[in-house]
Amino acid sequence: MEKGRLEAFSDGVIAIIITIMVISFKVPNNAGIASLTSIIPAFISYSLSFTYVGIYWNNHHHMFQAVTSINGAVLWANLVLLFWLSMIPFVTEWMGSNHFGKWPVICYGIVLLINAIAYAILVRALIRHHGKGSLLGRAFGADLKGKTTVGLYVVGIALCFISPWLGFVLYTVIAAIWFIPDKRIENEIFNKAETIT
Amino acid sequence: MEKGRLEAFSDGVIAIIITIMVISFKVPNNAGIASLTSIIPAFISYSLSFTYVGIYWNNHHHMFQAVTSINGAVLWANLVLLFWLSMIPFVTEWMGSNHFGKWPVICYGIVLLINAIAYAILVRALIRHHGKGSLLGRAFGADLKGKTTVGLYVVGIALCFISPWLGFVLYTVIAAIWFIPDKRIENEIFNKAETIT
Amino acid sequence: MEKGRLEAFSDGVIAIIITIMVISFKVPNNAGIASLTSIIPAFISYSLSFTYVGIYWNNHHHMFQAVTSINGAVLWANLVLLFWLSMIPFVTEWMGSNHFGKWPVICYGIVLLINAIAYAILVRALIRHHGKGSLLGRAFGADLKGKTTVGLYVVGIALCFISPWLGFVLYTVIAAIWFIPDKRIENEIFNKAETIT
Amino acid sequence: MEKGRLEAFSDGVIAIIITIMVISFKVPNNAGIASLTSIIPAFISYSLSFTYVGIYWNNHHHMFQAVTSINGAVLWANLVLLFWLSMIPFVTEWMGSNHFGKWPVICYGIVLLINAIAYAILVRALIRHHGKGSLLGRAFGADLKGKTTVGLYVVGIALCFISPWLGFVLYTVIAAIWFIPDKRIENEIFNKAETIT
Repeated sequence: MEKGRLEAFSDGVIAIIITIMVISFKVPNNAGIASLTSIIPAFISYSLSFTYVGIYWNNHHHMFQAVTSINGAVLWANLVLLFWLSMIPFVTEWMGSNHFGKWPVICYGIVLLINAIAYAILVRALIRHHGKGSLLGRAFGADLKGKTTVGLYVVGIALCFISPWLGFVLYTVIAAIWFIPDKRIENEIFNKAETIT
Repeated sequence: MEKGRLEAFSDGVIAIIITIMVISFKVPNNAGIASLTSIIPAFISYSLSFTYVGIYWNNHHHMFQAVTSINGAVLWANLVLLFWLSMIPFVTEWMGSNHFGKWPVICYGIVLLINAIAYAILVRALIRHHGKGSLLGRAFGADLKGKTTVGLYVVGIALCFISPWLGFVLYTVIAAIWFIPDKRIENEIFNKAETIT
Repeated sequence: MEKGRLEAFSDGVIAIIITIMVISFKVPNNAGIASLTSIIPAFISYSLSFTYVGIYWNNHHHMFQAVTSINGAVLWANLVLLFWLSMIPFVTEWMGSNHFGKWPVICYGIVLLINAIAYAILVRALIRHHGKGSLLGRAFGADLKGKTTVGLYVVGIALCFISPWLGFVLYTVIAAIWFIPDKRIENEIFNKAETIT
Repeated sequence: MEKGRLEAFSDGVIAIIITIMVISFKVPNNAGIASLTSIIPAFISYSLSFTYVGIYWNNHHHMFQAVTSINGAVLWANLVLLFWLSMIPFVTEWMGSNHFGKWPVICYGIVLLINAIAYAILVRALIRHHGKGSLLGRAFGADLKGKTTVGLYVVGIALCFISPWLGFVLYTVIAAIWFIPDKRIENEIFNKAETIT
């Protein structure tokens, strides 16, 4: 199976997820500048989610450049990822409209955690399809970065029981870690080139 | 006519349908974890619909890989399918917000039934265009799977008059049957290869 | 300039317009079947609009297959068409939620009229760019079909002053006329082939 | 990295931004023609925003035709632009629903200003990646047009303190300046061709 339409469909769904969150901004009823302060929490919440969905899109885009073909398992692993990405607008709005209350921030973290797991499953499905010796297989290896991230989310969720802001800060730190497109694929291409020489 | 833009347009519409349903999740007004229980029915309803729309996208994607060109009839059969797929968000929200009451579950089943018929019509339009001896013609044959599905939906709708949960369970079973991308196209490619040998 | 991204962007916008209308369906608060009768006008209104937007997409798709390149004027004529297509969800909802009252049906007709004019302008921009002797130039000629349609919309809008249902019926008739993808492009290809022989 | 999916994703997000604004039109409760007057400010606000987003899409489309490859910095500069474009629906609705009050018009201008800066940053990221001697580098040069625009927005925002309508008029003038697709890229292609001769 070719990867073209899977990429196009994923792009479409992610584009909608990233944009639809803006609908949840309640437009103030009056024209005063003070009324904007009421949307600051929603704006912060939206900004982090936009960054996260942007990171997923970037890395998805990046990873699929190394993909040569797909199978049924990849198709479904990808849909599971899209399903959980589509939960982000809901938790974003809940977190923003409740001014970062404990449970919304915990649920936000849980959705991010599930997404990280879904992404790791997609990575595994792709490696199983391409083989461990393939570019993807060598680039991800034991996927230490993915596993560490999962661990950090668990810590972030736990921190929320002390203060939701601690959890929120850790989520932001994880976003920063992933901000730079995943270099592992490039490194592998580079290593391969070196080995040949 | 080329199939490229029909695929792209269908991907776009299906991507929006699958994502737009998430808007119907009413974000709770308070930050308590208990308030999440109120969205459980909507979440279950959304999950089944996401799976169904995902299945349609998967199979649509799959079938069009065997398509070489399209005509006006295919264009319109495809639009009819998209129209009825676009009804899924409405019945999903009705079913979820009314906690799986009898009539919403029946109407949900009717929309799924009409979609199955619309898909079967699209299959027939494609076969008429490509010929019965074509890859698609041989892969689908008398389309027994499609016909059985239509029958199962009728049973599911009838079961709702006893209990809507029975109907809902049967819809879930049908989704499970279709979960695996349709192997008939691969089988036909494989058979052909064998015959040549 | 290449036409690829213009097609992709138009597909995206039209896919959203056609799907977004379904959000305007107010989900009934209760689970009774009788509550569905309240959405019948919205459903009829949606069905006609879905058909119209589908027709525009079909013909846009069709026409651009004969397009070899675009320029700034085509880009903007296309955006003007997309702007007026984006007005369809608004008049659709107004017409449906007010049970086909006189002014909503008139405004619906006016939006369709402006869209027909915008499409005709896009056709002219394409012909000016490709030349009158081009495939498009010969296929559309004086664009009699386009001009007749504009006239019919004016009649339909006028009929609303007698009864909005007369106007609505005429809009449906016009949709039926355009339902079949425009054969003029195919005819021209065929004529050309014949002349060569 | 190839530019294809970045273009597709940007097209998707921009298509949603441009279309989603129409949801903010509150459909009147009654069928009288007078009730339409209440949406006139929203319509004017939507028209200007549609034009602005259309201009961004046009120029983005245009600029990327001269782009041969992308890197991580371009990917993120592009996402930052998309983020701020996604703020346009919010300020559009606020401005329209508050009948062009002072603060909404100021915030609208600020969002446009930030978008202009984000676009200029994207231009710089592309030039840094392609080199100053590249087609893009020579076409944009010191990007005088971009800098003047930024200055004009600042003037427009300042004018709002006298009257928001003055600011709004200046925003419209800036849109008119950018309405025509940026000729600098064509000029550069033309110059190069001339130099060779």
